[in-house]
Amino acid sequence: MPYVNIKITREGATAEQKAELIKGVTDLLAKILRKNPATTVVTIDEIETDNWGIGGESVTVRRKR
Amino acid sequence: MPYVNIKITREGATAEQKAELIKGVTDLLAKILRKNPATTVVTIDEIETDNWGIGGESVTVRRKR
Amino acid sequence: MPYVNIKITREGATAEQKAELIKGVTDLLAKILRKNPATTVVTIDEIETDNWGIGGESVTVRRKR
Amino acid sequence: MPYVNIKITREGATAEQKAELIKGVTDLLAKILRKNPATTVVTIDEIETDNWGIGGESVTVRRKR
Amino acid sequence: MPYVNIKITREGATAEQKAELIKGVTDLLAKILRKNPATTVVTIDEIETDNWGIGGESVTVRRKR
Amino acid sequence: MPYVNIKITREGATAEQKAELIKGVTDLLAKILRKNPATTVVTIDEIETDNWGIGGESVTVRRKR
Repeated sequence: MPYVNIKITREGATAEQKAELIKGVTDLLAKILRKNPATTVVTIDEIETDNWGIGGESVTVRRKR
Repeated sequence: MPYVNIKITREGATAEQKAELIKGVTDLLAKILRKNPATTVVTIDEIETDNWGIGGESVTVRRKR
Repeated sequence: MPYVNIKITREGATAEQKAELIKGVTDLLAKILRKNPATTVVTIDEIETDNWGIGGESVTVRRKR
Repeated sequence: MPYVNIKITREGATAEQKAELIKGVTDLLAKILRKNPATTVVTIDEIETDNWGIGGESVTVRRKR
Repeated sequence: MPYVNIKITREGATAEQKAELIKGVTDLLAKILRKNPATTVVTIDEIETDNWGIGGESVTVRRKR
Repeated sequence: MPYVNIKITREGATAEQKAELIKGVTDLLAKILRKNPATTVVTIDEIETDNWGIGGESVTVRRKR
C-alpha cells in the first residue's frame, strides 16, 4: 500500500527508464518491508530546470556555468 | 484552512469535472470537520500514464494489455 | 487509482471523522470521474498549529488573538 | 538539507522571478535555522487555474467574476 | 538531485530497514537515470493506519476484518 | 494563494523560528510575485533523522561519522 513520489528534472527520461524505476522501487518495498506490490503506487514528476533550485540557484543557471 | 492535493492520471478530466471535485471536497471538509470553506485549498495534479505506476508497472503498459 | 493527500491542523479529529473523510473523498472520485474505489488511496496529515501558517502567521498565534 | 515545494498558479512567473524565489527561500533557511544552502532543494509547481480551488471554486471561475 | 518521498503505514519499520530503503532508492536513480547519489534526497513518512485509506476504508478498519 | 511545504529534519526548531520562517516565505511571495499574503499557506514537516536520507545514507548515520 505504499505511495512513492519521485521528482526529477525534466531532461529526457524515456518511458522505458521510468517503467524500470517504477518496477525497481516497487520491488524494493516488497523485498525490504514486505509491502504488497499490487497496491504500491509510484508517481514521477518531471520538473523544468527553471523550477528546480539547489544551492540557492536554479538548475538552468547551474548548467550554464 | 485544509489543503488537499488530488493526483489523477491525465485522461481528459474536464474543467467542469474538476470544479465539481473542488466543490465536493471542500464541502466534505466543512461538513465532517467544520473546516472553513473560504480558506480550504484544493490542487489537482494530472499525471501522464507513463509517470504513474501501480503493481510495478506503468499505467500505459497496463492499459495495453 | 487516484491518490489524495489531505492536510489539516492537529486538533482532535476522531478516527470516525477521518474514516468518514476517506469514504467521502473516495466516493466523490468514483462518482465524478469514474475512478475505481478499490485502488483509490487517501492519506491524512495532521499538522501541529505551530507548523501551519496562513497570512504570514502560525495558526497558534492566530488562535490566541 | 531542507526540501521546499512551492505551488503557485501558472500565470506567467518569469525565470528571473523563480530564481529570485529559490534564492530567497534558501537564504531564509540559512539565516533562521542555519541550514546549509548547498544542500537546500527548492521545487516550484505551476498549476493551471482550472486545477486550483479555493473557497470551493476553481481560480478560473473566481477570476471571471 | 532527485527528491523522493516514500509514504508507508506506521507499523514498526526499523531504522535498518529505512536505511536500506534510502540506499536502494538512491542506487536505482543512479543506475537507471545516472543521477548523482550525493544530492539525492529521500524522505520517509510513516502514517498512522487511521490516517491511511484504501478502497474507501481506513487501514485500521481493514486490518480488523 | 500559494501553498508552500517546507521539510526539515526534526532537530529542535523553536516555535519562534518556525513563525519567522512562515513570515519570511509569505513576504517573499508577496514581494517577488505579488501574491496575496492573506491566502498564502505554509506548512512545515519536521522529519526524524532516521527518515531522511541524502547520499544514500540516513542523516542519523551521517551525523555519527
